[in-house]
Amino acid sequence: MARNTPVQAETDAPPVTAALARFVARHPSRGWSDAVEHEAHRTLLNGLGCTIGAAQHEAVRASLAAVQMLAPSPQAQLLGRAERVDMASAALVNGIASHVFDFDDTHLKTIIHPGGPVASALLALAEVQRSSGRTLVDALVLGIDVACRVGNAIYPAHYDRGWHITGSTGMLGAAAGCARLLGLDEQRTAMALGIAASQPVGLREQFGTMSKALHPGAAARNGLLAALMAGHGFTASPRALEAPRGLLQVVSDQRDWNELTHELGTRFEIAFNSYKPFACGVVIHPCIDACARLREQGVKPDEVERIELAVHPLVLELTGKKEPADGLAAKFSVYHGCAVGLVFGRAGEAEFADAVVRRDDIVALRRKVVATVDPRIAEDATELVATLRDGRRITISIEHAVGSLERPLSDGELDAKFHALVDPVLGAARAEGLIGATRRLAHAAGVDELVALARP
Amino acid sequence: MARNTPVQAETDAPPVTAALARFVARHPSRGWSDAVEHEAHRTLLNGLGCTIGAAQHEAVRASLAAVQMLAPSPQAQLLGRAERVDMASAALVNGIASHVFDFDDTHLKTIIHPGGPVASALLALAEVQRSSGRTLVDALVLGIDVACRVGNAIYPAHYDRGWHITGSTGMLGAAAGCARLLGLDEQRTAMALGIAASQPVGLREQFGTMSKALHPGAAARNGLLAALMAGHGFTASPRALEAPRGLLQVVSDQRDWNELTHELGTRFEIAFNSYKPFACGVVIHPCIDACARLREQGVKPDEVERIELAVHPLVLELTGKKEPADGLAAKFSVYHGCAVGLVFGRAGEAEFADAVVRRDDIVALRRKVVATVDPRIAEDATELVATLRDGRRITISIEHAVGSLERPLSDGELDAKFHALVDPVLGAARAEGLIGATRRLAHAAGVDELVALARP
Repeated sequence: MARNTPVQAETDAPPVTAALARFVARHPSRGWSDAVEHEAHRTLLNGLGCTIGAAQHEAVRASLAAVQMLAPSPQAQLLGRAERVDMASAALVNGIASHVFDFDDTHLKTIIHPGGPVASALLALAEVQRSSGRTLVDALVLGIDVACRVGNAIYPAHYDRGWHITGSTGMLGAAAGCARLLGLDEQRTAMALGIAASQPVGLREQFGTMSKALHPGAAARNGLLAALMAGHGFTASPRALEAPRGLLQVVSDQRDWNELTHELGTRFEIAFNSYKPFACGVVIHPCIDACARLREQGVKPDEVERIELAVHPLVLELTGKKEPADGLAAKFSVYHGCAVGLVFGRAGEAEFADAVVRRDDIVALRRKVVATVDPRIAEDATELVATLRDGRRITISIEHAVGSLERPLSDGELDAKFHALVDPVLGAARAEGLIGATRRLAHAAGVDELVALARP
Repeated sequence: MARNTPVQAETDAPPVTAALARFVARHPSRGWSDAVEHEAHRTLLNGLGCTIGAAQHEAVRASLAAVQMLAPSPQAQLLGRAERVDMASAALVNGIASHVFDFDDTHLKTIIHPGGPVASALLALAEVQRSSGRTLVDALVLGIDVACRVGNAIYPAHYDRGWHITGSTGMLGAAAGCARLLGLDEQRTAMALGIAASQPVGLREQFGTMSKALHPGAAARNGLLAALMAGHGFTASPRALEAPRGLLQVVSDQRDWNELTHELGTRFEIAFNSYKPFACGVVIHPCIDACARLREQGVKPDEVERIELAVHPLVLELTGKKEPADGLAAKFSVYHGCAVGLVFGRAGEAEFADAVVRRDDIVALRRKVVATVDPRIAEDATELVATLRDGRRITISIEHAVGSLERPLSDGELDAKFHALVDPVLGAARAEGLIGATRRLAHAAGVDELVALARP
């Protein structure tokens, strides 16, 4: 899965981002020669001329018609908030929110998180277009299929190169879904995919910053706008994905074209989607799962003398933080994950709050956890041995962690996860209403009920 | 300059864009199993939960504060048109218009067209922020410096890989310029560059479609939004450009880090900007220039028996179209370029109108043009020999075409180009007013006069 150093990367590059930022922020006003100053005005004049001269061009007309659909500004709902914004911005912000807890869905073949980029675009567009629930569900299945099939074709080479694959395929999923929702024909749908192909989003370097969550958000916005523009006649290459200078060749050193079309329409990639039960990196999930089982067996935290786990090598490589200082750091600590698993039986966003991370009993318990790499252990497995104060030893073997394709979250577990996330924002009754509205969506006349319930 | 086939590209990839488009447009509603249908609802429910749960997260607050700055919708002017739209959309559409004639500026070291992405973002933001003219000019110089320095560091490897370098560096230029215009400090400017770094735009495969012009437009919008988000506290990696998985390593196989910082603040890349005198690929420019000189010497089209030109190999490779059917095709015809050069003494957008391309005298004249590759001829040079009906032979040698760095357009020539573009849209008086307003911009209190003049 995750790899730490891209092939042939330079690790000792100078800090040029900081150098350019300092320059831009601090260079004095008009700190250059008359010739440079003159050239700035010539650049501006030439640019104005070209822009005004093209004011009636078809490309301008088509793109303008698309962005005029973003007005009036408060046209689409931000989920869980009171504000309404234009639909492109709603796609962006809801897409950011979908991923910022690192708690969303995962297409495990490609580690794409497909729901955020596709659903965020679709919900905003469906609200404005007053689309039926059926149309929305169709568009979601098809949009996710496109994003994940592109992912299948270029994973892992594309990811290894440094792309955050969720944002660099998600704009295609969003474009496909929105094209479907708009009812575009085959040719305009190809244009929507082509327009989106020019706008991949996301560098893995951003992991650990807010820009990681920007990626599905910007992908949602780019895909939505691509479909709107295609609907108004904006054009792109009909071979934007596969051409020598098309997306898949430009952003990946390897491609398997067959992945894009094999069993198209009979195998659906959304069937391979999974949902995280715990709000942290998927590699710790088997360990949390094992500790939650220990709790289920009636073991109390203060009975424990030591918890030993045999783990996959990536667990310590990615999540070996022994003394996390806050919630964000705790997401990279298998020790904290085990502690909350045993204390609470779950590891949602609340269990990674700073206050929980600093609780004395949690700190004491995490120090009793010993994780040892065992190359025979699979990524979604672990073997736990708990030694209790009374001398008992309890062994728990997790073959496939909860949330894996082999042991998917049940609908009940998914509802519980939903409540844990939504109750603090909207209250339990409204959360329950949203679960029902989502279950019935395919039969609903529109998304009005769902959207109204998502507004505090 | 332009190269025809990227290294190691696959030229025989199957038509997957069309296949996916057909699937998305035509697959029947609910054309899948109950399990797939159920998974779609689970994907949606999980996504809603994650999104609503994060509604109060700092990343959501910061991005929302940024997009709220896009309201009310009609806040920024489309140049040469009556419409007003939100400023992100104005950056997008004006950026598209700036490039759609392929007539804009060129930073010849990298073939970046820097004015479109940077100025389109700045003008929209300056109008909303009521920035002074001085601030705008400063931001333009600095923004273009950032975009072109990044280009210098990765050209030509990045371009050869298939990226349209105008859009894949332009978002950094727009972000830098907008950060400056917003008065962001060094740290937030670095964040703006980082947020923009995740959003490069543009595949060369799009050349010949409207999406080529999308690239500077989307770069302008992405950079503007990146700066707005950074201003509200949205974060990115402070090493988003140079890290092993940062932009420059992800999108280019080679980098020269020194290009980013050498002589920073003393050498300004805008000084190396050039402006096209003719509305077509730069390789034909020496030939058009030579034919316009022939006209200046008093030679009339019907006196000509034959025009022979010795040209650089790229001229025939890129612009060897003998019988162009319309204006778009004529931009790739050295023969048409020579014909209008001799008939009109210029080759602006008007001289590539379909009607001109089909005129009998133009067709007859272009058939008298013979271009022969001579490897000793430089890209911006040509040698012309005209044989007249009366037996005279006239030789014209172009060492550096007009518009090259060695023979830049004079201010008078640039004004004439501006009039040719703008007069048909706004009239000559208003065009003259815009020239004056642009010349005085650094001393203007704001962009109000300029914007008012750009509105028909």
